[in-house]
Amino acid sequence: SRSINLAVIPGDGIGQEVVAQGLKVLSAVLPQDVKLETKEFDFGARRYHATGETLTDADLDALKKHDAILLGAIGDPSVPSGVLERGFLLKLRFAFDHHVNLRPSKLLPGVATPLAGQPEIDFVVVREGTEGPYTGNGGTIRKGTPHEVATEVSVNTAFGVERVVRDAFARAQARPRKKLALIHKNNVLTFAGHLWTNIFNKVAAEFPEVTTEYMHVDAATIYLVTQPERFDVIVTDNLFGDIITDLAAAVSGGIGVAASGNINPSGEFPSMFEPVHGSAPDIAGQGKADPSATVLSVALLLRHLGYDSEAGRIEDAVSADLAERGATPRTTDEIGDALAARVSG
Amino acid sequence: SRSINLAVIPGDGIGQEVVAQGLKVLSAVLPQDVKLETKEFDFGARRYHATGETLTDADLDALKKHDAILLGAIGDPSVPSGVLERGFLLKLRFAFDHHVNLRPSKLLPGVATPLAGQPEIDFVVVREGTEGPYTGNGGTIRKGTPHEVATEVSVNTAFGVERVVRDAFARAQARPRKKLALIHKNNVLTFAGHLWTNIFNKVAAEFPEVTTEYMHVDAATIYLVTQPERFDVIVTDNLFGDIITDLAAAVSGGIGVAASGNINPSGEFPSMFEPVHGSAPDIAGQGKADPSATVLSVALLLRHLGYDSEAGRIEDAVSADLAERGATPRTTDEIGDALAARVSG
Ligand SMILES: CC(C)[C@H](C(=O)O)[C@@H](O)C(=O)O
Ligand SMILES: CC(C)[C@H](C(=O)O)[C@@H](O)C(=O)O
Repeated sequence: SRSINLAVIPGDGIGQEVVAQGLKVLSAVLPQDVKLETKEFDFGARRYHATGETLTDADLDALKKHDAILLGAIGDPSVPSGVLERGFLLKLRFAFDHHVNLRPSKLLPGVATPLAGQPEIDFVVVREGTEGPYTGNGGTIRKGTPHEVATEVSVNTAFGVERVVRDAFARAQARPRKKLALIHKNNVLTFAGHLWTNIFNKVAAEFPEVTTEYMHVDAATIYLVTQPERFDVIVTDNLFGDIITDLAAAVSGGIGVAASGNINPSGEFPSMFEPVHGSAPDIAGQGKADPSATVLSVALLLRHLGYDSEAGRIEDAVSADLAERGATPRTTDEIGDALAARVSG
Repeated sequence: SRSINLAVIPGDGIGQEVVAQGLKVLSAVLPQDVKLETKEFDFGARRYHATGETLTDADLDALKKHDAILLGAIGDPSVPSGVLERGFLLKLRFAFDHHVNLRPSKLLPGVATPLAGQPEIDFVVVREGTEGPYTGNGGTIRKGTPHEVATEVSVNTAFGVERVVRDAFARAQARPRKKLALIHKNNVLTFAGHLWTNIFNKVAAEFPEVTTEYMHVDAATIYLVTQPERFDVIVTDNLFGDIITDLAAAVSGGIGVAASGNINPSGEFPSMFEPVHGSAPDIAGQGKADPSATVLSVALLLRHLGYDSEAGRIEDAVSADLAERGATPRTTDEIGDALAARVSG
């Protein structure tokens, strides 16, 4: 019989509330014969304040034993900027080699967008997750003096770029439109830019059916608001991916519905799935958070584990729920209940 | 009697056409007693192909003798990516210490925006122009092999950050709303992020009337499409500034009307003014380019040289022209004529 051994990290702020709904929908969608085991981990601001720890080697060992990880949100204004980001979120992505950061953007029917008209948006960003300016390379000299110098080093390797570029080509090949855009800034960041561009062109030769284009990151932000329908699959570096996926989420229905996967394609380490929105401390504990992004992250998780039809049912449920949303706001719990009812129906 | 000694760089693609209109409007707006002298420089793709040169020391010496520089656009697909960008545009910004890269975003009445509704957009981005990931620091080892490593180093100095932050605070102080936002990614780029944040907070203490906020660059892209009216003045690093000013231009009427100044506030070197759009080789030579961005760049140039009322007249003329634009497209020349007529009227 089949089983899913899931690590659950509710985290901070609205993380608790939305993860509860994600698990509710997950239980409802799974067939009887699939045994779901969950183990909750208490990471985030509370643990940091209590123990000073963010993510220990023992934590990583414990997480490693699972098939996948579901995360709500990590981050709280009571913790200095960077501590939980570097000490937990990025540490985990690097430790588990989550080099494919997958962020689909689809404007679902009936969902509001800040863009005029109702453009057809349906693309996926493959953001590199373990290199670029996110490596923590760099430093500071003469800190706090008028002569301070601070550096940040973007590290890019042929190994790291090629594997994520290959992943993106394979995804483009599997989609009806078969289009792939490389986004970088190769006219200014010429060292990293040439590496990315050369590898992209080399791999492109192996995928003759995929139509490719190159776009500077600044120009890409223009197209994301004026012609978002032109995109199918995008591959880009860690920092550019961070920036454009927030913009992509904003134009395709907001971060309330933006899901993401931090994927280790080889399966050597468990992959992690999380909504793109943060912990939103201002609305935490009030039942106001939209759990849709978390529920869609559960769909990505299921697809990653090979439960394609269950993933599809969740996506259809969220789509139908959004299309039928009335003007009366529902609570986090009510939306979760509605989605659970739809997927089990 | 007063005089303006202007270096003119029409450059590539539509650069020639739009600069001609900029000069037309400049001549029309200047009072009789101001002597305008212009000297044209033949930089760009043609010269590169003919001589292999992009910008020599002798060129810099010649440019230096002017009060300001008006640039159309530099860049052509016939030149490998990076050659003219690094060899001309960035070389000039660094050589003339253009550390304040000023990019106003104002949605003028009657101008189309991709955003739903007609938000009130009126902010200015102060982008650092001589540091960050633009310094060209970095390199490549094992080029072209499976073991290639390419780095890009973002260099940030207290000196460089403080002068641009001060400039931004002074601009915010002079505006009615007196708001300043720092945009960075200090939760991930912690070395540079702390330098920027600390200096920002230190200088803020000297400007108690200015309301400040900090925003991560990814979140900023969301606000630029969902709440652009919240921004007044933004200060940010070179790369983040590059990215968000293209997005800002897109939401506030498009790059057809986006002007910019590469400013050396001390006056040690001439400042340079240019439209944000590039050389647009696809429409070059067809009289289709909108010269408004160049004409608005001339307004920034005049303001920089102390001709405030003339700058205001140009801005009013562009605003009125845009508001009254009919459905029939006009040529580059016709728009230039109309603007020249308005400012001299
Ligand atoms: C919180 C932060 C470390 C993170 C990132 O920059 O990757 C977030 O913005 C994201 O996109 O997941
Ligand atoms: C052409 C390029 C070097 C330049 C930049 O990145 O600064 C351009 O995008 C701009 O914004 O002026």
